[in-house]
Amino acid sequence: MEDIVVVFKEKPVLREPILVEGLPGVGNVGKLAAEHLVDQLKAVKFAEMFSKFFPPQVLVNDAGTIRLVSNEIYYVQRPDANNDIVIMIGDYQGLTPDGQYELSDKTLKIAKDLGVRRIFTLGGYGLGKMIEKPRVLGAATDIELVEEMKNFGVTFSKGEPGSGIVGASGLLLGLGNLYGMRSVCLMGETSGYFVDPKGAQAVLEVLAKILGVKIDFTELETKAQQIDQITSKLREAEPPVEPKREDLGYIG
Amino acid sequence: MEDIVVVFKEKPVLREPILVEGLPGVGNVGKLAAEHLVDQLKAVKFAEMFSKFFPPQVLVNDAGTIRLVSNEIYYVQRPDANNDIVIMIGDYQGLTPDGQYELSDKTLKIAKDLGVRRIFTLGGYGLGKMIEKPRVLGAATDIELVEEMKNFGVTFSKGEPGSGIVGASGLLLGLGNLYGMRSVCLMGETSGYFVDPKGAQAVLEVLAKILGVKIDFTELETKAQQIDQITSKLREAEPPVEPKREDLGYIG
Amino acid sequence: MEDIVVVFKEKPVLREPILVEGLPGVGNVGKLAAEHLVDQLKAVKFAEMFSKFFPPQVLVNDAGTIRLVSNEIYYVQRPDANNDIVIMIGDYQGLTPDGQYELSDKTLKIAKDLGVRRIFTLGGYGLGKMIEKPRVLGAATDIELVEEMKNFGVTFSKGEPGSGIVGASGLLLGLGNLYGMRSVCLMGETSGYFVDPKGAQAVLEVLAKILGVKIDFTELETKAQQIDQITSKLREAEPPVEPKREDLGYIG
Amino acid sequence: MEDIVVVFKEKPVLREPILVEGLPGVGNVGKLAAEHLVDQLKAVKFAEMFSKFFPPQVLVNDAGTIRLVSNEIYYVQRPDANNDIVIMIGDYQGLTPDGQYELSDKTLKIAKDLGVRRIFTLGGYGLGKMIEKPRVLGAATDIELVEEMKNFGVTFSKGEPGSGIVGASGLLLGLGNLYGMRSVCLMGETSGYFVDPKGAQAVLEVLAKILGVKIDFTELETKAQQIDQITSKLREAEPPVEPKREDLGYIG
Repeated sequence: MEDIVVVFKEKPVLREPILVEGLPGVGNVGKLAAEHLVDQLKAVKFAEMFSKFFPPQVLVNDAGTIRLVSNEIYYVQRPDANNDIVIMIGDYQGLTPDGQYELSDKTLKIAKDLGVRRIFTLGGYGLGKMIEKPRVLGAATDIELVEEMKNFGVTFSKGEPGSGIVGASGLLLGLGNLYGMRSVCLMGETSGYFVDPKGAQAVLEVLAKILGVKIDFTELETKAQQIDQITSKLREAEPPVEPKREDLGYIG
Repeated sequence: MEDIVVVFKEKPVLREPILVEGLPGVGNVGKLAAEHLVDQLKAVKFAEMFSKFFPPQVLVNDAGTIRLVSNEIYYVQRPDANNDIVIMIGDYQGLTPDGQYELSDKTLKIAKDLGVRRIFTLGGYGLGKMIEKPRVLGAATDIELVEEMKNFGVTFSKGEPGSGIVGASGLLLGLGNLYGMRSVCLMGETSGYFVDPKGAQAVLEVLAKILGVKIDFTELETKAQQIDQITSKLREAEPPVEPKREDLGYIG
Repeated sequence: MEDIVVVFKEKPVLREPILVEGLPGVGNVGKLAAEHLVDQLKAVKFAEMFSKFFPPQVLVNDAGTIRLVSNEIYYVQRPDANNDIVIMIGDYQGLTPDGQYELSDKTLKIAKDLGVRRIFTLGGYGLGKMIEKPRVLGAATDIELVEEMKNFGVTFSKGEPGSGIVGASGLLLGLGNLYGMRSVCLMGETSGYFVDPKGAQAVLEVLAKILGVKIDFTELETKAQQIDQITSKLREAEPPVEPKREDLGYIG
Repeated sequence: MEDIVVVFKEKPVLREPILVEGLPGVGNVGKLAAEHLVDQLKAVKFAEMFSKFFPPQVLVNDAGTIRLVSNEIYYVQRPDANNDIVIMIGDYQGLTPDGQYELSDKTLKIAKDLGVRRIFTLGGYGLGKMIEKPRVLGAATDIELVEEMKNFGVTFSKGEPGSGIVGASGLLLGLGNLYGMRSVCLMGETSGYFVDPKGAQAVLEVLAKILGVKIDFTELETKAQQIDQITSKLREAEPPVEPKREDLGYIG
């Protein structure tokens, strides 16, 4: 079989589309944010990517039907804006390093065919501790984009992230360079301990300003409250400990 | 060498054949069931699949002769029924995720050439505890098949299996979709602790009704009794413990 | 680069050559035996196999020069016998399962070009305990060869080796079948705890009879004595323990 | 995508160029040495290698811009010398054995196109203990080069390195042989516990003599002092222990 099988339901014609990517990762921040964007913009699915770089697995829906694990691509047409939007979400990233390269390269080939010249990748920046007001850190392919992003409240902090950006959110920038695409990675701060809708909301608030779209965050806020309830119960269930001073500011 | 080498002993002409797959997996439920089906229907082996995705290993027969590890494909011609049957059994599944994809895709290509349009994959659903009367859980490629299967006593239970279906029993459904094949996975409940002929019998009882074949289960029942004897000895050998209440209903 | 690079120093013309293989494995029995055969028969190296399935490593000779890890193929012309001999030895087996398949298949292609129709693969059969008089166990591609080998003192024992034969010594038989080659694996019993020249000698004594060659075993016997000295020192260095009864017959 | 993507900024015409390689490895000795050589000779970057054999990662510069992990190739034109110089440095070596082979083979193809016929690979030789005056060990493709190197103070010591040379520094010699290239590996002794500028300097002092270039070592010496300060603080922080006699000569 082909390493990556792309099944197109339709081949949309888009105006200078911007690609937004959010796949599973630290705190699932990118995935949550991109999925919420799909919902809010009523984006239309037009392509599915299956690949032997994904786990050999089908998921079972509540009705008892199955679907093969995949990445999915959606589009949003915006007659009143300069740019249409393409959004990639999915169940998994590639299982192996070379699989990750192949999947990102395939994504870029599809994006190029659609006319994409700018990409926003969404992810989480794991702090290893609870965080109340997550910042949105950025990295970009060129210094002009860095400056542009600062105007939208994106933080560029020397030495953060020190270990670089791993996975699709990094590769789409790095490989995208070879396709002449200008790109930004937006990283929401997160503890990294569990799925983090708060980090996703922080990222999406910035992205909404950049794209000029309106987003209702009610659903993400509800999810964040549910997570907060679970984690506070977990903390109660633990034997009482004297909180370390360094954590005092972060636990709500 | 080719990634997968298929050696045909014969190329049978079959009438609307149904593919049944049972390879090693949880409790070896699927493998036991499919092998028993081969025996009972006196199915004829017509193809062997060798592959570098299998372990680099030959097995030694009692006579001192060897055979390379493989998957094998059998057929059953049924002049009095609407569908002939094709059965795949084997020593191993692919060792790597991409190997699993390649092997399932190759199986589907062979199945398509034979005219297969419907697939039943057999497997085990591991409960992690002893089970007296295993149910048969199902998953299918479309909602009509789900309904059809319910009539044969297959259970479709929301959230089961929660982690999806991994391996050939899942991929043949998921990839088969791309070949336009309609498929069902039948999963016999099993503890998953050892080879489980009881789970295999449960699956095969359902499948026999679906296919309209008669199966003598004496051999599987004998195997199940042998396993019961071994496990009850193991339990006797353990220091006596107060059974946990939640397990009471399941240990015979 | 090509997955496997074969560099021929010469392309010998051989009469119905028999291939003998001995690569690293349990107790290095096969490797020791095949290397000793190369020495004793003054075999001539004519080909080297390099491959990305081997470790990315060069070995440093005493003089400070390097050589890339490889498998090597030698030939022996025997004007007075019916069959010339081809011997394969080497530093490593393939690192991955698919690498093992590719390397064995390449070896078979080379063998076929040379006119090989019979193969002897040499290996160790690990017992996990000390053994004084190692038997030579066998496995073969057909029942006639099994019977033929029994006449040379090869043991065929139901259920041994229970786990089959892994690696080149197994694959050359299994894949060789697809090339129409008839083959035998000879396995010398060994503890498997260390390099075992005694197991190698047992294998080679049988093989010498089969091939009709004379072998001087002095060197292997010397090596075996050195190993015996080392292991007896190790036993002395251990705190004295009451020997278990089941081991009494095996420790010299 | 291609397994390895080479982006040329320019295709320099060079006179009998010598290739020098220094990639990450034991004590990062080779990488430090080659990077220092690039700085000192004001070498010009002319090619970048990206590959799916590297981690799927971008690095973030202090300004917030990213770059995809890569290997880089530089050149130095020397009108007054017989040989121009080509230098390869980089972020990573290949993640897998076959990736290492592919990357080294690609490097050799590029080198051959440039007219390279001699290679020096730089690395560390890990001792597992502190070392004050690191020797430079050597290995070469032929005995004439071994003798030539001895004149420059390179040590060739029987049994060192006993385990051979793993990675690009070994493969460029071993595979280079197949391209008819004569090569030397220079290994600076190092504890292997941390990044070791002292080992790098030792290697570079030898290489400078061989190449006939002048190197200012101030920067490496400063780095070495910083490392010394850190490690001596670490030693102070440890509970005081009686130094083992065997280590006495090595801790400064």
